[in-house]
Amino acid sequence: MATTEVTSNAVAANPLAPPLPDLSPQAELALLARMLFREGYDDHLAGHITYRQPDDTLLVNPFGLTWDELKASDVMRIDLDGNVLDGKWTVTPAIPLHLELHKARHDVGVAVHNHPRWGTIWADLQRIPGVYDQTSAQVAGDPALYADYQGAVNDVGNARRAVDALGDARMALLANHGVFVVGRDIAMAHHRCITLEWRCRQAWHVEAVGGGVPLDPEVHGRFAKPFDHISFPGLWEAMARRELRADPGLLD
Amino acid sequence: MATTEVTSNAVAANPLAPPLPDLSPQAELALLARMLFREGYDDHLAGHITYRQPDDTLLVNPFGLTWDELKASDVMRIDLDGNVLDGKWTVTPAIPLHLELHKARHDVGVAVHNHPRWGTIWADLQRIPGVYDQTSAQVAGDPALYADYQGAVNDVGNARRAVDALGDARMALLANHGVFVVGRDIAMAHHRCITLEWRCRQAWHVEAVGGGVPLDPEVHGRFAKPFDHISFPGLWEAMARRELRADPGLLD
Amino acid sequence: MATTEVTSNAVAANPLAPPLPDLSPQAELALLARMLFREGYDDHLAGHITYRQPDDTLLVNPFGLTWDELKASDVMRIDLDGNVLDGKWTVTPAIPLHLELHKARHDVGVAVHNHPRWGTIWADLQRIPGVYDQTSAQVAGDPALYADYQGAVNDVGNARRAVDALGDARMALLANHGVFVVGRDIAMAHHRCITLEWRCRQAWHVEAVGGGVPLDPEVHGRFAKPFDHISFPGLWEAMARRELRADPGLLD
Amino acid sequence: MATTEVTSNAVAANPLAPPLPDLSPQAELALLARMLFREGYDDHLAGHITYRQPDDTLLVNPFGLTWDELKASDVMRIDLDGNVLDGKWTVTPAIPLHLELHKARHDVGVAVHNHPRWGTIWADLQRIPGVYDQTSAQVAGDPALYADYQGAVNDVGNARRAVDALGDARMALLANHGVFVVGRDIAMAHHRCITLEWRCRQAWHVEAVGGGVPLDPEVHGRFAKPFDHISFPGLWEAMARRELRADPGLLD
Repeated sequence: MATTEVTSNAVAANPLAPPLPDLSPQAELALLARMLFREGYDDHLAGHITYRQPDDTLLVNPFGLTWDELKASDVMRIDLDGNVLDGKWTVTPAIPLHLELHKARHDVGVAVHNHPRWGTIWADLQRIPGVYDQTSAQVAGDPALYADYQGAVNDVGNARRAVDALGDARMALLANHGVFVVGRDIAMAHHRCITLEWRCRQAWHVEAVGGGVPLDPEVHGRFAKPFDHISFPGLWEAMARRELRADPGLLD
Repeated sequence: MATTEVTSNAVAANPLAPPLPDLSPQAELALLARMLFREGYDDHLAGHITYRQPDDTLLVNPFGLTWDELKASDVMRIDLDGNVLDGKWTVTPAIPLHLELHKARHDVGVAVHNHPRWGTIWADLQRIPGVYDQTSAQVAGDPALYADYQGAVNDVGNARRAVDALGDARMALLANHGVFVVGRDIAMAHHRCITLEWRCRQAWHVEAVGGGVPLDPEVHGRFAKPFDHISFPGLWEAMARRELRADPGLLD
Repeated sequence: MATTEVTSNAVAANPLAPPLPDLSPQAELALLARMLFREGYDDHLAGHITYRQPDDTLLVNPFGLTWDELKASDVMRIDLDGNVLDGKWTVTPAIPLHLELHKARHDVGVAVHNHPRWGTIWADLQRIPGVYDQTSAQVAGDPALYADYQGAVNDVGNARRAVDALGDARMALLANHGVFVVGRDIAMAHHRCITLEWRCRQAWHVEAVGGGVPLDPEVHGRFAKPFDHISFPGLWEAMARRELRADPGLLD
Repeated sequence: MATTEVTSNAVAANPLAPPLPDLSPQAELALLARMLFREGYDDHLAGHITYRQPDDTLLVNPFGLTWDELKASDVMRIDLDGNVLDGKWTVTPAIPLHLELHKARHDVGVAVHNHPRWGTIWADLQRIPGVYDQTSAQVAGDPALYADYQGAVNDVGNARRAVDALGDARMALLANHGVFVVGRDIAMAHHRCITLEWRCRQAWHVEAVGGGVPLDPEVHGRFAKPFDHISFPGLWEAMARRELRADPGLLD
């Protein structure tokens, strides 16, 4: 439920859930990668996540590891020109898209690219999936559709055009390719990524049997609005617990 | 098979299966949450289960834990006004719908809300899935379709209107949202939840290839009738064993 | 490949695979239940398997256990009138269908009923799935479609009519219900069950995008023919190894 | 991303990922079988992989083991006439197709046949799946469609006709049967197999909701071209690590 109102003062003093251990920013990025892998962001070695730090360096997952094996100690650090500052592995050559984005959008703390299971279907369709339910409605607006696939993503000019096409959208379908999602912080990026995937899955199933009744756009806006400001309470933490139960070693 | 007739007197004296350990009501609720998660009631932090106790208090799952991690000791206790009586976590702000329901429907021991995988597709379609087979037919009648999505679920007036729309239905599709299922006790709520999900999955697959032959409504009624009175023999217990094999710690 | 011809004399002397441990008939039935569960024969407590023994008693899975938890020691023994001879649990009240079948069809060593994932879709459609590929073609003929759903399955008269409708078919779709598959022995019943499920899954996916080109019926017949006489070499054994790796305790 | 350009000299000196243990050719074949099983190449005992060695012998998986249980020590060695040279199990009678291929195509180091989940749907449809995204585009050209299903695959004449139909294609749909994929080495065969499966899955989902916009063939060609020469950097190694995490015993 998209609300933070609580039903009694007594419970307001209670925690939502058991506390997480202290998490370094590198551990947060590894957790995000593992969570999203489990949600369908699982195209082998594809995908990059950048996480802007207070000193304007970026943390990024290494090029040669899959999202389900990433540990905190694998995370790389680069500067905004793409130079590697720290880390034992390599960085994707597709990093210019992220660099241009972080230069242009100071509101973006985290940027995610991959070819997720349902989002990529709509990228292939070059159409915007309808919003058919409350869960799908938790991110405001529609994904941008960036349809120009003329150049390589490691070209700076193309990266800038992609950033322009994104505008102030929270997420984008990259036509015939995959998705791109941004957020202020790790929890927001996570929430937007899983909401986009849910929306794409639901809309596909709805269309495959002839179409449904989209949510009233005004209701969509109302549901989504709080999540541009606050995180879904406890969501990131719950998903982090799931990953930590499955493999506590990811914190190493 | 929807019958309790047995084929020999000898076997009538045998147990159906190995006995479960003694289960507290809190353990029963945790088991139900885990069973339903496995069946597709798995939308992250979404979903609430209320379980009315003989003293008219309600047990409820906490707001900040997922259904697959819930343990007996995590379960909260509230009164019919939503005040927290016991428990270490918090309660969903969406609880008014459950409170109004339990005030209005004294026959309801357990109420379940979530956004399950196949049920939510039909909520998105705003249509009632056909009954195409015996397994789908084990709950009488059709789900109510509550299509008015004007207000917040934490508003008492809206909660009452939703309860009115449910009427005496055993289950409801909440348009563009999810499902709501009620039952006299835990085993009945479980059986109805999984039957609704099966019915929704089957009907979707049938429609996606052009439609099938729905079950004769009279046959539907005949199959379903006993389950308004008795549980499907051994079903709850079998699913409880599955969860206990997977994680005996859920009883803690 | 549907052939037993081998390519060299040297290799003909080699075993196909490591040997299985000695398996009691009860262990064979438990293995079959677990294998089929993994293939989609997984509708909770639904489903019964009967396995005719040389003394004309039948082994049968108990009514109250799921197919994925069954152990050899759980298997029941009944006579052809349904009297329980041995075993600690109960027998399904739907057993008359199996009893009538074993009385009428002495060629049947094993009979399987359940509501599998893809087979039940076609039972719901009341249509015969096309044969679109070699794997689908490994069972001769089409499933019978038994469409009369007037009576209870625990009624002897209805059970006889169902057996008549099956005729000499190797498998049947029970309209708006599930499937029924017979075989001379455990390995043949297994092979037919998984082939029917494959055929149903493939045909659904083919129809959902507009239809394909069915296999020439003559080719279907040619592929299927050997499997009415010999087992698919090594198939049962390979699937048994998979179950034994997952849970060696099933032999207990 | 289909490029090997790196963004800084510093990182160019770093490894892509932790090194794999030394792998025998037999271990490579077992790894490939396990990886592909996980990707949907999982039709029970179906499927054969041949791996040409420098001495013109072939390694091949045994007939009676599934791809998910294969260990290095299970792999067989045969000569180009199909005589078994080494190994404790048997070889598929369908081996002539592979033998003819390796005789005719000296550029082929590895050949894979199976009935994968999505590829076989298109074999059933007897149509070529469109290329709808970048991941689908990583193998040049279209699969050949070999539609003549008159003879047995263990007949040499039929095997030659199939090899002729393949021509210089990198992959083929065997009508009403399955797929056939070739590559210079293990990593290339793996990459082509998973790309074909992705392409088939995406195209099915696109068609099931009315069709999408195929990738410009020129862009397809451009994306695919490097992979006829170099492997996708680190892909094989990442998937090998996944299998080794799941079961280190596969190296035995």
